[in-house]
Amino acid sequence: MGMDLATLAARVATETRIPVTGRDIERILVALLSAEDVWRIAELARIPLLALCAGLRALADAGWVSWESWLVRLTDAGAQACTQLGLSPAPALDCPRCGGRGIELGLLNQLSAAFHELAADRPDAAQEFDQGHVTEETTISRVAEMWRHGDLAGKDLLVVGDDDLVSVAAALTRLPRRVAVLDVDPRITSFIGKVAKRESLRIEILSHDLRAPLPRSLARAFDTFACDPTESLEGFLLFAGRGLASLRGPGSAGYLGLTHAEASLAKWRAIQERLVAWGAAITDLRDAFHAYVNWPYVETMRGWEHLPVRRVPGRLEPWYRSALLRIELVTEATVDLGPVEGNIFLDDEAATT
Amino acid sequence: MGMDLATLAARVATETRIPVTGRDIERILVALLSAEDVWRIAELARIPLLALCAGLRALADAGWVSWESWLVRLTDAGAQACTQLGLSPAPALDCPRCGGRGIELGLLNQLSAAFHELAADRPDAAQEFDQGHVTEETTISRVAEMWRHGDLAGKDLLVVGDDDLVSVAAALTRLPRRVAVLDVDPRITSFIGKVAKRESLRIEILSHDLRAPLPRSLARAFDTFACDPTESLEGFLLFAGRGLASLRGPGSAGYLGLTHAEASLAKWRAIQERLVAWGAAITDLRDAFHAYVNWPYVETMRGWEHLPVRRVPGRLEPWYRSALLRIELVTEATVDLGPVEGNIFLDDEAATT
Repeated sequence: MGMDLATLAARVATETRIPVTGRDIERILVALLSAEDVWRIAELARIPLLALCAGLRALADAGWVSWESWLVRLTDAGAQACTQLGLSPAPALDCPRCGGRGIELGLLNQLSAAFHELAADRPDAAQEFDQGHVTEETTISRVAEMWRHGDLAGKDLLVVGDDDLVSVAAALTRLPRRVAVLDVDPRITSFIGKVAKRESLRIEILSHDLRAPLPRSLARAFDTFACDPTESLEGFLLFAGRGLASLRGPGSAGYLGLTHAEASLAKWRAIQERLVAWGAAITDLRDAFHAYVNWPYVETMRGWEHLPVRRVPGRLEPWYRSALLRIELVTEATVDLGPVEGNIFLDDEAATT
Repeated sequence: MGMDLATLAARVATETRIPVTGRDIERILVALLSAEDVWRIAELARIPLLALCAGLRALADAGWVSWESWLVRLTDAGAQACTQLGLSPAPALDCPRCGGRGIELGLLNQLSAAFHELAADRPDAAQEFDQGHVTEETTISRVAEMWRHGDLAGKDLLVVGDDDLVSVAAALTRLPRRVAVLDVDPRITSFIGKVAKRESLRIEILSHDLRAPLPRSLARAFDTFACDPTESLEGFLLFAGRGLASLRGPGSAGYLGLTHAEASLAKWRAIQERLVAWGAAITDLRDAFHAYVNWPYVETMRGWEHLPVRRVPGRLEPWYRSALLRIELVTEATVDLGPVEGNIFLDDEAATT
C-alpha cells in the first residue's frame, strides 16, 4: 500500500471521524475498477457509506476520479495509479445458484410462496425507527439458516424488532415451539397480528421500546433470538444485549445483521469484543448474506447529501447488504445493560437514519 | 432442553474435561437422527470428537443409543426421547452447486487442473507435525476467497505451515507480488521447492519451527497470511500470533482454519477474544468450508481408541472439516508471544494428534 493511500485515508478519517485505513481507500479503487454506478460502487466497496463519499471526493481532488450524471469513474491518472498499486477488479465468484449464500432454497418453495403472498401488503420502511427491511428471499434464507443450525425446530424464538417479518416466516414453517415478537412500531405489530390471525399462526406480539430492559417474563426464556439492529455502536449493542438477555443459557443462539455501509471494521471489532465478553462465541459470519429492499426515504437519509452523484435506486436493486452473524452462548450471559435514553440511531458512521 | 441433557452433558464434561453443554448432547442426537455411520455422525454433530465419543457412551448407558459393526443407532427409547425433545433431522440445505461454500469455481478450472497435477505426488500427512491436509478443491477455494477479498492480487502472502500447498496454488494464479512459506517439515519445504523450480514459480521457502518467533525479516512484511493451525488453544494462538506479527498493519488480513472436532465453542470464544485483543476484527467465518483428506495415521491418533465403533474411513470420504476464519487488523497488531517450548499439539480436546 503506497504512501498516498495512507495519506488519503488519514484525510478521510479526519473529515468523517470514521476509522479509515489505506486498505479502505484501496477497496474504493477496486470497486471503481469493477463498476461505475454509485450504488454498485457502494455495494462493492464494503466500507461505511460516509467514508466512501468522502473518499471519492478526496480521490477526485487527487485527480484520480471524476463523475457525471450518476456515474463515477476512474480518470486515466486513477487507472494508472491502480496499475502501479497492483490493483485489479474483484472477480465475480459468487455461486450463481445460491447467490453466494451457500443455501439451497428449493426445499422451501412452498414456504417461500406462502411468505411472498403474506408479505405483499406489509408496511413501508419508516425512517422514524431506522427501518429498512430485507428482501423476502433473504428472510427465508435467514430462517433456513436457523433451521439447519437446529435453532428453529422445537425451539422458542424471540424476534427483536421485526420489520423483516422473520416471525411470520418462522411460524409458517410450523417448526418452532414458540414464536414471540417485540417491536415498537404499531404498524408492524398490528400487521403481524392480522397475518397471524388470518393464517392461524401462534405468534406472541409485544409492543416494546428496546431502550427499556426486556419485560421480566421474556428474560432467560428463549433458545434463539433474531434481530437486525440499528448500527450505531450503542444501538447495535442494545439490540444484541437485549437479545442475549432473552436467552436461556449456554447453547442458546442469536442471529444478527451487520453492515459495512454503516459500520467500520473498527466498529465490528468493538462489537465482537463485547459479544464475546458477554459470554458468546461467534459461530458464523457470512458477509453480504442479507440484501435490503431500498427504502422510500433514501432522499432524506443522512448519507444522501454526501453522495457525489445522486440517483434514487430502484426498490429491488439492492446495494445495502449485511452480514449474517450467528452467536452462541458458551456461559450464562453477563449483559449489564439498564435502561437508556435518547436517540440510539446516530453515530459518526450512521448513513441511513 | 430437558434436565436429562444437562445431566448427560455434565457427565461428559467431567469425564473429558471438555466444556460440553446440553445443546452439544442435542447436536449428537440430531446427528443420530440423520446418519448411522460414525464418521458422518462426527461430521454432523460439530462438537469435539472426544466429547462425541464420551457422549455416545453416556447415551448408550441411558439406553438411547446402541451400536454394532460400524453403525451407531438410536434405540426406540432414544428415538422417543428425540420426539419428546422436539428434535428432528437437520435439513440438507447446502447448495448442490457450490457445496455450501458460496463460491463458483468455474472461472478457476485451469488453475484447478494445474494444481491437481502438481499436487499428485505430495507428501503424506505426518503425525509428527499434526498434519492433515485439505482436499485440492478446498485449497483452490481458499485461494479464491483470498482473491475475491483483495488479499491476493498484487499482495505479499505468507503461508505459515503449508501441507495444504496454498503457496503453490496462490503462486500458480500469478496474482500475488510475493509468496513466502514457513514450514518445519523438510518433506514439505523440499516438495514445494521442487514444484516451484519446475514451474518457475517464485516462492520463498523457509524452514522454521513456529515455537520460535518469526525471523526478523518477516515481521510486519506481509499483506496476507494463511495458516491451518494445530488446535490446542496454545498451538492455535501460536500460529495466529506469528501470522499477525507478519502483517504490515491495519488492513492486512489473515486466513485460518478452525474445527469443531478438536475445539469446543468455549475454545472458539477464547480464540476470538485473543484475536480481537491483538487488534483484529473477524470479517468472515464460514463453517465447514474446508474438507480434509483422511490422513494415514487415523488408527494411531488419540481419538481412535475413544470411538465406540472403529472403521478406517476412505481417503476421500471427508468427515473432518474446519471453518474458514478471515481476520483483518484494524490497529497495529499487539501480539506478545515470545519463544515457547515443548509439545504445542496437545490439550483436552485434541483428537487427531
